[in-house]
Amino acid sequence: MQPILSISPRIRSTPFTERVKAAGVKAYTVYNHMLLPTVFNSLEEDYHHLKKNVQVWDVSVERQIEIQGPDSQTLIQMITPRDLSKMRDDQCYYIPVVDDSGGMLNDPVAVKHSQNKWWISIADSDLIYWIKGIAVAKNMNVTIIEPDINPLAIQGPKADELMRRVFGDEITSLKFFRHKKIHFNGKYHLVARSGYSKQGGYEIYTNGFKSGEALWDRLFEAGQNLNVKAGCPNLIERIEGGLLSYGNDMTQKNSPYEAGLGKFCSPNSSIDFIGAEALKKQSIEGPTKQIRGLFIDGKSISACTKPWHVTHGDKKVGQVTSAAWSPDLSKVVAIGMIDREYWSIGNELEVICPSGKRTAKITQLPFIK
Amino acid sequence: MQPILSISPRIRSTPFTERVKAAGVKAYTVYNHMLLPTVFNSLEEDYHHLKKNVQVWDVSVERQIEIQGPDSQTLIQMITPRDLSKMRDDQCYYIPVVDDSGGMLNDPVAVKHSQNKWWISIADSDLIYWIKGIAVAKNMNVTIIEPDINPLAIQGPKADELMRRVFGDEITSLKFFRHKKIHFNGKYHLVARSGYSKQGGYEIYTNGFKSGEALWDRLFEAGQNLNVKAGCPNLIERIEGGLLSYGNDMTQKNSPYEAGLGKFCSPNSSIDFIGAEALKKQSIEGPTKQIRGLFIDGKSISACTKPWHVTHGDKKVGQVTSAAWSPDLSKVVAIGMIDREYWSIGNELEVICPSGKRTAKITQLPFIK
Repeated sequence: MQPILSISPRIRSTPFTERVKAAGVKAYTVYNHMLLPTVFNSLEEDYHHLKKNVQVWDVSVERQIEIQGPDSQTLIQMITPRDLSKMRDDQCYYIPVVDDSGGMLNDPVAVKHSQNKWWISIADSDLIYWIKGIAVAKNMNVTIIEPDINPLAIQGPKADELMRRVFGDEITSLKFFRHKKIHFNGKYHLVARSGYSKQGGYEIYTNGFKSGEALWDRLFEAGQNLNVKAGCPNLIERIEGGLLSYGNDMTQKNSPYEAGLGKFCSPNSSIDFIGAEALKKQSIEGPTKQIRGLFIDGKSISACTKPWHVTHGDKKVGQVTSAAWSPDLSKVVAIGMIDREYWSIGNELEVICPSGKRTAKITQLPFIK
Repeated sequence: MQPILSISPRIRSTPFTERVKAAGVKAYTVYNHMLLPTVFNSLEEDYHHLKKNVQVWDVSVERQIEIQGPDSQTLIQMITPRDLSKMRDDQCYYIPVVDDSGGMLNDPVAVKHSQNKWWISIADSDLIYWIKGIAVAKNMNVTIIEPDINPLAIQGPKADELMRRVFGDEITSLKFFRHKKIHFNGKYHLVARSGYSKQGGYEIYTNGFKSGEALWDRLFEAGQNLNVKAGCPNLIERIEGGLLSYGNDMTQKNSPYEAGLGKFCSPNSSIDFIGAEALKKQSIEGPTKQIRGLFIDGKSISACTKPWHVTHGDKKVGQVTSAAWSPDLSKVVAIGMIDREYWSIGNELEVICPSGKRTAKITQLPFIK
């Protein structure tokens, strides 16, 4: 039996919730205390449509932490091992955020407006508590709020065409992980070329709850003959693309090196951040386990609702946290964390799924570039 | 159509999840990134059973923040306006936790083991980020972790009898909001007389994931002829009892005074906590809105999935965030936040529910003592 979700004000609705319901959403997850759609038609139908057309996603759950004031840059550099010193005012950076022992607290996108104004676009944890706690304890000159900003993603190969129709040719010159402002419904909204898929697209940081439905409707009106549909981050497509999910594939117990995010860490540079000592140590010694792709034998797979053990003989050597049948690869694709001794590409291991023990082979991420 | 919940490892299972499923859980909410059951038979059947018998609740979502070390007491006093100086080593305190502007970050129960060891049993937010942020920034001598502790609540008028059968006579001498240790399955577990109902009972802080099912089974075995059932916090009963829900009835935007928790605040004492200045101001001026009970006209009510406006004529004067039909009072009972000018007991206002505008009358909390 499919479990029902009880919704209360604590599980917040978004500016797009009524439109999402009207579009026939079938299931949600809860993310940052908010509703995030997970399925409209079926995982596979949504997947095929995303890869051929264009979808509009309610990703309001990507809450923004707005940091303003003279100490902003110092504070943000303090929470991440990624060197922000060369970042431009129109850039977005994917930044691991770590605690004093190097454990990941979130993997947000930092959106720089200027040295003294930033948004941190967060994954699923109350990162504002960490940032505010540090700022208050250190008596820093910043103000930190969650503004009324609600991201709407436009994803898929026809995203450029849809955006052009609504916002003009100029928008399509935007480069990857760069942002600019657009004017709509009497307000300025930030738009970035970004999104949690590998199909290309944009995220519109909708400014104000009240602009939500007008923006949604405008996009659907303009995209009618592009076969635009309501969608959401798609489990199959994001596994194929090797996009990690914080809370699933890595948690507070993992370092960025374990999550395969070493390229975003500069613990040996001159930047000053919390957890530098722990990460420095790990950058030298290397992690003892790491994120890998896995092909799992079989023609289908049930949803991974809790970590599945990965074994070698009787020994537990890792876990799988995301898995799905990939129609385009005709294989079960998975993401897991595997012990160093066993993580080599091509290694054969076993995965204990609900259907029993299956053979699996370690592979690179992403599955599809 | 009832929305489906997509479960992934990010929505963590508990030691009791398999037993909860076997007991026929119908719906969940997500709380602290974990599954919390909301309905077994129906809200009303669960309610009647809870008020007459005894239920076992999987409230593992009440995650513990364990704080140990010489600076523990200083740190915990720093996060709450409640004076902890006279707290005994076997006591539990309900403590509002506030930020620098006096906004509530959580309303946990502090469980004191000793001056240098505490658990903070949290409501729905990542409070560990706030506490760790402060401790790290101030370089305090503490260690802070989320231990493998999973509360199981035994609630209802027959809770004493069930606990006596399993743990002996002595357990029933435990006073309200006091705790002690019991031995079960080769381990010590903390037990407190507490719980999120007004029917009386205990919370067993199950020590270790692996003890979960053994404890559950032992309680059901011993309680068979007490008509023990799997249950969960019951919306109707908790509204009748005036038990607030953080994230629903009050949020980070509210002060403890607005939440009606002024009696737990000592901003004018000598204790040193974050937000003291803001709360001092509010303790003098009084809040501009506050939690109230409301009787809403009508013989039934739909679930409150987002705040409902409370109006006086054309003016918005508050909001309702929890509502249910109370079989025992034969009325719709609700909890809301009402502006000062309109919050007097007996005042008549209107509530905009999905079914339309209804008359409502302000009343005291709790509805039933």
